[in-house]
Amino acid sequence: MIDFRIIAEDQETGARAGELVTPHGVIETPVFMPVGTQATVKTLAPSDLIELDARIILSNAYHLFLRPGADVVREAGGLHGFMGWDRAILTDSGGFQIFSLGHMNRVKEDGLEFKSHLDGLTFFMTPEDNMKLQRDLGADIIMAFDECVAYPATHEQAKVSTELTLRWAERCRRAWSADPREQLLFGIVQGATYADLRDSCARALVEMDFPGYAIGGLAVGEPKPVMREMIDATISLLPRERPRYFMGQGFPEDIVGSVAQGVDMFDCVMPTRNARKGSLFTSRGRLVVKNAKYARDDRPIDPDCDCYACRNFSRRYIRHLFRSDEALGPRLASIHSLAFYLNTMREMRAAIIDGRFVAWRREFHEKYDAGWGETETAETGDA
Amino acid sequence: MIDFRIIAEDQETGARAGELVTPHGVIETPVFMPVGTQATVKTLAPSDLIELDARIILSNAYHLFLRPGADVVREAGGLHGFMGWDRAILTDSGGFQIFSLGHMNRVKEDGLEFKSHLDGLTFFMTPEDNMKLQRDLGADIIMAFDECVAYPATHEQAKVSTELTLRWAERCRRAWSADPREQLLFGIVQGATYADLRDSCARALVEMDFPGYAIGGLAVGEPKPVMREMIDATISLLPRERPRYFMGQGFPEDIVGSVAQGVDMFDCVMPTRNARKGSLFTSRGRLVVKNAKYARDDRPIDPDCDCYACRNFSRRYIRHLFRSDEALGPRLASIHSLAFYLNTMREMRAAIIDGRFVAWRREFHEKYDAGWGETETAETGDA
Repeated sequence: MIDFRIIAEDQETGARAGELVTPHGVIETPVFMPVGTQATVKTLAPSDLIELDARIILSNAYHLFLRPGADVVREAGGLHGFMGWDRAILTDSGGFQIFSLGHMNRVKEDGLEFKSHLDGLTFFMTPEDNMKLQRDLGADIIMAFDECVAYPATHEQAKVSTELTLRWAERCRRAWSADPREQLLFGIVQGATYADLRDSCARALVEMDFPGYAIGGLAVGEPKPVMREMIDATISLLPRERPRYFMGQGFPEDIVGSVAQGVDMFDCVMPTRNARKGSLFTSRGRLVVKNAKYARDDRPIDPDCDCYACRNFSRRYIRHLFRSDEALGPRLASIHSLAFYLNTMREMRAAIIDGRFVAWRREFHEKYDAGWGETETAETGDA
Repeated sequence: MIDFRIIAEDQETGARAGELVTPHGVIETPVFMPVGTQATVKTLAPSDLIELDARIILSNAYHLFLRPGADVVREAGGLHGFMGWDRAILTDSGGFQIFSLGHMNRVKEDGLEFKSHLDGLTFFMTPEDNMKLQRDLGADIIMAFDECVAYPATHEQAKVSTELTLRWAERCRRAWSADPREQLLFGIVQGATYADLRDSCARALVEMDFPGYAIGGLAVGEPKPVMREMIDATISLLPRERPRYFMGQGFPEDIVGSVAQGVDMFDCVMPTRNARKGSLFTSRGRLVVKNAKYARDDRPIDPDCDCYACRNFSRRYIRHLFRSDEALGPRLASIHSLAFYLNTMREMRAAIIDGRFVAWRREFHEKYDAGWGETETAETGDA
């Protein structure tokens, strides 16, 4: 049922290039999934995403559950029909969103009680409810319903949470296989920053046999060496022939590092969220296009980029759009930043296949780390 | 120098089909010009406008003067280079904007003193300054610098204002011809709601010999029969072989009426401004897509429209986008409403050429006036 092929593996690192077959097309890995939380990648139309050649996007079950509601999406033929997107979709279960956006959440053995961040209404959701929700939304890949502990957490907090997540994963697995559809269910490895918990969680999930595995609960504020250590502790236990997804990792340089460790799939709001504020990712690092120094700069955002924004518009013009609060500014910035992410993934894939990943990575860093000499601003620091 | 050809004239009305040649393409009239006040048609990229086959857009010298400043636009190769648009552009001189947006304006014989609506700084602009400004912006068609009186105005107020506008028109005409470029300067007929003032103003402007003529100071709140009367009073005095532009007329049914009276060119923020609030123009009248009745409606906004929004998305989805404050909602709505306006202009043109304009107008009204049974909401009433 799971159709994931490894095309090439790097000899010097854990990096690998693969193909994941879904009902809505083949996804070439490593892959970055643009985030469309509310069934739209903010500021972009599906036609923009097709021009960027995005093969898969991510949407959020939690947000869609609250608005417009699962039935409104299901009746439209699921997310694909609803939002006019006929390529692949992954839905996040909502565990992370409930913890980061909800308030007065109460974790019970049977499920999660939470209040909507929109209107304060209280809901209770079991793992089985969540599987039904994600079935109604109809994404190609769905995620187990998990509990996420905040960073930092004590070992005891993390242990209790990880054990609950495992019991919920078992229930998700059972509900999913009881009503088989053309959807791949991914298990999520939790365990905070504790290698022993990551280890036991990964082993237990592999025992349950999921079509794919995610690494959750990282890139939430922990030091990068700890993050790297946790990835290593997890990856080594996951089966080679299944896709591996690092949830929410955002900085390009971190994604490159995780690919080297053997991760196949990524998502993050960072490229689009920062772009909407005028902070762009480029082949030479960050560029804050609103800065006064770009007022008369006729170069494109990134001279090495061939996206619609870089082919047609200057920094001079895009800065004007941001200063004038014009919607085209965030849109062009989002197009560019996603193009940079997606192109970087495609370059990495080609390098892995050609056996020159390490050389590619060195070249990437030489250029990216040198940067435009841009000063980081406070507003660009959020994830 | 002015290259305007009349292709066909309707036998029963004043309607006519023409071609206006500009350095950036041929404009087929009657034509509607989408408004891009700040060098961008709000929410749309040039690629969207090309898909809509807009041949000419309008921008505002007043706004661009204040931000980013004429020099920033001029250095980029004028508006065309600045905004990445290689089709035709018309700039409004800013007279109307100064009166509607500025405050503490002081009209002097030599020019206009006004405070910026952005930061309150005071500026003084003469007709000659304005011609230089519009030359720097580099549009294909530029407008004379005029004074607009508010509605209602007394005959004396209107007379004083119209006479000043005429003296300024003469100065604009002289400054324009002293430094000839590939720009067409249009004179603007003022005179408020007084036929005698419209008459004398039109005669004087025709005497000055402009490449084109605009009707200004209407569609500002006066009763529609008065507006029709003023158009008739003006049109009959304008030379047949010059383009005629009704500034700021917005409702589709009013534009159809003005075409029948012999007007060639139109612009208004109405289709895009209302669209951004979820109120759309369709072949069956207004549709307020945020209304609850569209929550599960899988039809496109307008089943008779072939725009990107109507080909790909349902009312169900577009309503969700608006409720969720997603930028794609205003963008799809703007695409549709402009498509409706531009398609209506093209249909009218074809009907005039085929000698069936009156029949077309009847069919248009049968469908448009029947409507979707939509209740007008307060928020859709603005122009």
